[in-house]
This record gives sequence, C-alpha cells and structure tokens, in this order.
Amino acid sequence: MISHLSEQVSTTYEKISNIIHHTPVLSSTALNRTTGSNVWLKCENFQKVGAFKFRGACNAVFTLSEANAAKGVATHSSGNHGQAIAKAAKIKGIPAYIVMPKNAPKVKIEAVRGYGANIIFCDSNQKAREETLARVVEETGAYFIHPYDNKEVILGQSTAAWELLQEYPELDLILTPVGGGGLLSGSILALEAFKASNPNSNCRVIGTEPEQANDAFRSIESGMLQSLTDEQIKNPTIADGLRTNLGELPFHIIKTSKTEIACVSEESIINAMRYVWERFNIIIEASCAVPIAALLEKKITPKYANIGVIITGGNVDLDALPWNRH
Amino acid sequence: MISHLSEQVSTTYEKISNIIHHTPVLSSTALNRTTGSNVWLKCENFQKVGAFKFRGACNAVFTLSEANAAKGVATHSSGNHGQAIAKAAKIKGIPAYIVMPKNAPKVKIEAVRGYGANIIFCDSNQKAREETLARVVEETGAYFIHPYDNKEVILGQSTAAWELLQEYPELDLILTPVGGGGLLSGSILALEAFKASNPNSNCRVIGTEPEQANDAFRSIESGMLQSLTDEQIKNPTIADGLRTNLGELPFHIIKTSKTEIACVSEESIINAMRYVWERFNIIIEASCAVPIAALLEKKITPKYANIGVIITGGNVDLDALPWNRH
Repeated sequence: MISHLSEQVSTTYEKISNIIHHTPVLSSTALNRTTGSNVWLKCENFQKVGAFKFRGACNAVFTLSEANAAKGVATHSSGNHGQAIAKAAKIKGIPAYIVMPKNAPKVKIEAVRGYGANIIFCDSNQKAREETLARVVEETGAYFIHPYDNKEVILGQSTAAWELLQEYPELDLILTPVGGGGLLSGSILALEAFKASNPNSNCRVIGTEPEQANDAFRSIESGMLQSLTDEQIKNPTIADGLRTNLGELPFHIIKTSKTEIACVSEESIINAMRYVWERFNIIIEASCAVPIAALLEKKITPKYANIGVIITGGNVDLDALPWNRH
Repeated sequence: MISHLSEQVSTTYEKISNIIHHTPVLSSTALNRTTGSNVWLKCENFQKVGAFKFRGACNAVFTLSEANAAKGVATHSSGNHGQAIAKAAKIKGIPAYIVMPKNAPKVKIEAVRGYGANIIFCDSNQKAREETLARVVEETGAYFIHPYDNKEVILGQSTAAWELLQEYPELDLILTPVGGGGLLSGSILALEAFKASNPNSNCRVIGTEPEQANDAFRSIESGMLQSLTDEQIKNPTIADGLRTNLGELPFHIIKTSKTEIACVSEESIINAMRYVWERFNIIIEASCAVPIAALLEKKITPKYANIGVIITGGNVDLDALPWNRH
C-alpha cells in the first residue's frame, strides 16, 4: 500500500505545482544553537489559505473525474480544510458546499464565503455535522472530500515534505504534528518516494502530538486505532488543529512504516509558539509549535544533524493569543 | 553624487551577498485584490538580526580598511542598528562598542550582548548618547558607524531593493518607509543602478512616512533639512523605528532624485500592521506597516501595476501589541 502510494508522489507534485505556492524555508541561528542541529522550517503558513491543507484539497479536487466533479464538492470543517476546499473548487470552477458549525469564528465563515462557497450551518457537534453533510451530498450530488481519510488528500499533503526534500536532500529527520494524520502519513510517503531515487538517505519521519491529544501515540502503542479520551475532549489541547481523531488510512501508513510519535505538554507548546514568533518573525498556529516544542524539550533523541519541520499553518486569532490569556 | 554611488551598488551586493540572507518575497491574493495591483513584500524581517539594518552594518564593517577596523567599531542605538553592528563585528572578528540608553528594553540589551558586543549604558537623551559615544571612541580608538548618515551603510541598504529588482524586473514602483533615510536613499541608488542596464524600466521609488514624524516630507517641501517638531517628539508615532530625523546624505539623495514622500495617519498604520499579520502570517514592526497603510488608504496615485514594498523588520514586543493597548 505504502509503495503503491509513494510511487504517485512525484506525479501528484507535477499535477498541482502550478496551483500551490512553493513555500519558503526559514532557519534561525538561535534555534540551531539551542538545539545543536540545523533546523529548517517549511513555511506552509505562507501556503494559499494559510495552511498545508490547500495541498491536499487541491489534489483531491483536481483529481476528480469530470463526472464526479460536475456537481461540485462538499465537506464539513470549522477550520483550514473548509477554506482549502472552497478555494480549490473556485480555481477549478465548480461549486463547493461547506458544512460549518453555526458558532464557527466569524473570520473563518467570511473566509469560506470569500472563496465563493455555499455555507450550510449546523449545530456544533460531530453528529450534526455528519448528518448535515449527508443531507447536502444527497441533495446536491456533490462529492465529499474527507479532510484526511482520503488517499488524494494524503498525496496532496505529501508534496510539502517532497518539496523540502528536493531542496534539502541532506535532511536526516522530518518532524510534523499529528491531528487526523494526513500530513504525517503524506510525509512518510514523500520520504519513501525520495529514498527510491536517493538510496543513501538515512532520513526518517517522526510525528509529534500534544499529550492532551495523544490518540496517535496510543494507537501506535496498542496497535489499534484509538480516539481522544473524554477528559481530552473536555479539556482540549491549545493546539486546536490537532483535536482530531487519527484517521484509518493515515493510521495504516503510520503503523506499517513503524513511525514513532513524540508527545509534548501544553506549556511547552505555548512556549515554543512564542519562541517561533519571536525568533522567526512568523505567525504560526499552536499546532505548528508542537514539533518545535519536542525539539526544545529534547523529546527527540538521539540528536539529528539536519532537521526539517513542516510548519502547518498560521490562522490565529490575534485577539486571543495564549500568552495574553493568563 | 547619485550616479557615483549607484555605480557601486552591484559590487556592494557581491561583497556582502555571502554574509546577508537573500530574503524571501511574499504576496497575497487579498492585498492584490484590495489594491488592484500586484504587491510584493520583500521580507527583511527575515534578515539576520530581524531587520534590513544588517545589510548596511555589514557593508560598513566589511568595507573598513584593516587600519580602521583594527580597534573595532562603535555606535549608539537602542534598536536594530546596534544589534546589526554587533553581529557584523562578530562575524568580522573585531570588537563592537554599543552605547545604549540604560532604559532600553531588556530583550534588546540581551540581543546585543548575545552577539558578544561591549555595551556602554548612558542616560536616555541624545546629548548623553553622543557624549558617551565620543568618549568611547576616544578611549578605544573604535571606528564610529552612523546608522544612516554614512555612505557605506546606505550602499548596504541599497541591496534590499537591488535583490528585489533582480527578481521582479517588472516593478513600476518601490515603496519604503523613511526614518533617517538610509533605506529610502539606498533604494533610490539601487533603482538607478538597475536602470543603467534596464533602460526600459519605468520604475520609481516613493518614500512613506507617518504624519506624526513627517520631517522628510517637510524637508522635501521646503528644500531644507527639517527635524521632528516638539509636538512630534512629545507624542511620538507608533512607528518607533521612524522617530528619527532625516540624515544629511539621505536628504541629498532624496532631494536630487526628486523623490516624493506620502504620509499616513497613526490609525492607518495600526490597521495596516494588523492587516499584514493576518493576511501574510508574518510579524512586522509598526514601521513596516507605513507603506502598506499608504497603499490601503490610497495615498499613492496613480495606480501602479507591480509594486514592491521593503518590509523593514520584525522586532516587536509581543506583550505590547498596539491592538491590545486600547
């Protein structure tokens, strides 16, 4: 399964490379000195819609057959995936139907609307979302694109690590956060594809997760797909992009490739987020700070010489910064 | 004078290009749609020490004769120039003496110290700074590098616009903020140098300034070098990097080249700063928001098709953001 998918990484990249941004890579002397490694941030916060999610949405939308695309695409999302599907559909010239909880932040609703998508509001719970989505698909005939449990979405996400590896073939470690697992599993595929033509690379991928949303860690440990606990749902991690259960296809790829997961505390996430804001002058979501926290807290051993980190997105509410809440 | 200096832009760039960062250029569909132009941000907030000032400091330090460099370099600064000189001197392997007001932000003091510079504290007024600097130069024999009224500093600053023009030769406008005038006059030199080999370019440079620190605007209008007014010193602009009087050499270059200055309100600066944070996911100082404010407020007419903006720096106190002060 993995090799079958990884063989499609480079053609996926060729397909979407004219639509996505080739995002810049930043480094900082301070972080390199602190970690004792060369650390490269792949800045997907500069991707279209401000997040790597555009890569997966774009590939999924542009891979649809004409028949499947004819009636548009649909998804449910309160976050970046909804914006990404809306924007990709707009570029493709097909309708998009985005199911959003009615208490979603106004700025996110406006962003989705700004891409010309149809918004269908629902109550703010998983059941209402899924039922509303099913009804929308039934009524419109639109094609449902899952945010991460979707082969084409995962292949789209793989192109971030793929771009990074083309530019920095000397990497010996790639770190990503894990929410639904689309980015982590995509990065595993990208590395597999890279090694096919670079057999001397000893690079590996490690996933990073908040302790307060460690379902991927527990899934790997137990060998069975786990969900967030009731306590984790009640006291959610500040890394709001990672408050998602790991998907089945991502879990399969992560498990088969024997990929490890490192977990970090809430406090270390806030510290790492502020560290990146101050040292790199870039705005990153709390989710992106998780791999940086793992580095700063020395949760990744042994030491790697050249580390790439996928910075996933930058959609932040500037009126509610975590260091201003206390 | 201008053509004599502009002939040195490309050799300056060759001299320092291995020491400075070649900074990325970002754009956003939202800003392009709002302005009706293609706008490219040259991100000097990702430059070493987090500001374009490193370019000028670097060129000034690396242009010194061995005799002049032997005893080190000195300057007075509470901001980015001090860090830039400290870092450039460290790379060159010579001592740096930075005169700083004793109430300078701790984080800036630590940054300068982190580059291994000697810090000499003084009272927080212009007279104390200048007297302390004179004493330090007298005692150490260090070479004084002025933050903007210095030919080599201006040539170093010219390399930001020079890099941008190499990458985007289709630009028809370059915007910079104006404080002491080093960046604006450097950008004028870079454009002059670019036109020498691109005679069909119809690009021009316009400076932008807070109304609350409009000494450059008044200097151009009157033909005589003007200072900040007492009222402007008492109620300083939020763009703290621009609370500086225009220097003599920058004024000469700006005046001779008939460069225009557009002025913007304090409110528009804060709005533009937040706009860039939200739309570009980058951290910029208030000073960098001044040219963006001029675009958003339609202070620049007629409309230009392709606009480059030099984003000067990203050193911001995250605990005192302007939209959290009210």
